[in-house]
Amino acid sequence: MNYKIDNLQYCNWSREVFEINREAALDAVHVTIVYHEDYDELLKRIDEWNIHFEENSDLIFHGKNYKDIEKAKEEKKTAIFFGFQNCSPIEDDISLIEKVHELGCKFMQLTYNNQSLLATGCYEKIDSGVTNFGKEVIKEMNRVGLVIDMSHSAEKSTFDAIEISKKPIAITHANPSFWHKAIRNKSTDLLKTLAQSGGMIGLSLYPHHLKDGTNCNLENFCEMTAKTAELIGVNNIGIGSDLCLKQPDTVVEWMRNGTWTKKKNFGEGSKNKPGFPKQPDWFKDARGFKNLEVGLRKIGFNQGEVEGILGNNWYNFYKNI
Amino acid sequence: MNYKIDNLQYCNWSREVFEINREAALDAVHVTIVYHEDYDELLKRIDEWNIHFEENSDLIFHGKNYKDIEKAKEEKKTAIFFGFQNCSPIEDDISLIEKVHELGCKFMQLTYNNQSLLATGCYEKIDSGVTNFGKEVIKEMNRVGLVIDMSHSAEKSTFDAIEISKKPIAITHANPSFWHKAIRNKSTDLLKTLAQSGGMIGLSLYPHHLKDGTNCNLENFCEMTAKTAELIGVNNIGIGSDLCLKQPDTVVEWMRNGTWTKKKNFGEGSKNKPGFPKQPDWFKDARGFKNLEVGLRKIGFNQGEVEGILGNNWYNFYKNI
Repeated sequence: MNYKIDNLQYCNWSREVFEINREAALDAVHVTIVYHEDYDELLKRIDEWNIHFEENSDLIFHGKNYKDIEKAKEEKKTAIFFGFQNCSPIEDDISLIEKVHELGCKFMQLTYNNQSLLATGCYEKIDSGVTNFGKEVIKEMNRVGLVIDMSHSAEKSTFDAIEISKKPIAITHANPSFWHKAIRNKSTDLLKTLAQSGGMIGLSLYPHHLKDGTNCNLENFCEMTAKTAELIGVNNIGIGSDLCLKQPDTVVEWMRNGTWTKKKNFGEGSKNKPGFPKQPDWFKDARGFKNLEVGLRKIGFNQGEVEGILGNNWYNFYKNI
Repeated sequence: MNYKIDNLQYCNWSREVFEINREAALDAVHVTIVYHEDYDELLKRIDEWNIHFEENSDLIFHGKNYKDIEKAKEEKKTAIFFGFQNCSPIEDDISLIEKVHELGCKFMQLTYNNQSLLATGCYEKIDSGVTNFGKEVIKEMNRVGLVIDMSHSAEKSTFDAIEISKKPIAITHANPSFWHKAIRNKSTDLLKTLAQSGGMIGLSLYPHHLKDGTNCNLENFCEMTAKTAELIGVNNIGIGSDLCLKQPDTVVEWMRNGTWTKKKNFGEGSKNKPGFPKQPDWFKDARGFKNLEVGLRKIGFNQGEVEGILGNNWYNFYKNI
């Protein structure tokens, strides 16, 4: 079979967005359900998702494991997998890991941009790696089956997580830094180690992660994909678009600032460009998967490889963990 | 005037303990009111203290600033100053700093033994220093008048805190590592920098911080005090006994393990000695201040210096901040 998966979106969810994802024939989407929320706030976000599931049951349902990707394909729906961009929902309590997993959450970043109780984020000056609590958390995540996501983590912390984790980990949304030196993008060494351990990188379509930002062209993105495949193999590459459709700029401000600072932090943006950046023309939303398919074929990938990148590799990852 | 201050106790509070502190003529005690509690749990601990204040109003009252030390002396009571051994009550929210200060809290450790959101604890392998959030928190603590306490923090983090803070900081309970190489004790370089910046070290009477532990003798402790005074000056030295009177061993287990690990962590103890250690005979409780007075005179401090160490230096610190 042949699956299409976008392994990171954080849209302003509505029937319209779910319809776009169906038009794009997405069988599964890993959605961010919390950034800085604590456990009680997570419960509220899940309540909101339960309403989405009820009101849009012809388009989406809550995915728990790889069989739900198969089911989605069969039923022409999109399986929604829950993930966190920060570890705030488990607070300082290791017992909450099992609870969030029981609630049907599948991915958890060990850090957002700043230091967390578990590891160091990519925007800190010094990276001390996975902490004492972080080591215990990784063990517990492995045990219950919650996937470690290091998209926003610093380099040593990510190497540590790969080494400590007994299961493959994911970088659900980032690009290689050899192509574009965003702080969030990942070194070749790191991507090689990730792939050798069975981990996945989801290539991002978020303009701050793209060479030339909004003006990045499709060919250039596909060249980068080909170079990455040469370096780490094609089977560990997927898509994690980081699409933030229809979100107001107040949301990106909250993503960056949470409640940790009184002055404004601009994260990947800047004082002059504080808002969400405009998507490239060829990937305005998930329907851009069709353009990726054309572009990846044109750059020299065979049909099987393209299908791998656009979904089957993520499907295999879900199946193996 | 001449004040007696113990700048760290975490006892199993009862009228009996308050009476012992009065027998010791303590004008002020900085008490730990939370270790790992979040903001809501802090409110409960404060409710419990309000009951203590009500039931023992002839012995204690809630101290807010240095004038309350003077008032305590006058009224023959002990002023109780609130402090946290971890930063968990402010969670990930900078606005809670002002709130905890308004609740009458005076000291906050940036870390307990592990990494926190603010800085690195002394039991982590790598110390990355004060974090992005930590820098914002220090500014805010300076602004509202909450004192930074680095007793359980790692070395670089402590140097960072001294440098970033515009007000003197405190190490409320620790000893110099030249005397006893406990992980929690502090290097001479660090103590010199602390003193030069107007900060205070509260010498600890907790056996794990003492040379020869429970068997440490008074003379040896006083020799260490004299050596420390030679190195950093006598005016920045006080007492922070770290007395944990009447606490059951389940409490020290909780202090060390909180909710961060499923296996047992023994902290400063060990598998064979997991409980609270026995106090030395000459400092079973705060009445040992009298023995300290004799011992410090005998080792060569003059009366004014002894009075400084046993309380006046802390009084001046409270007055200056």
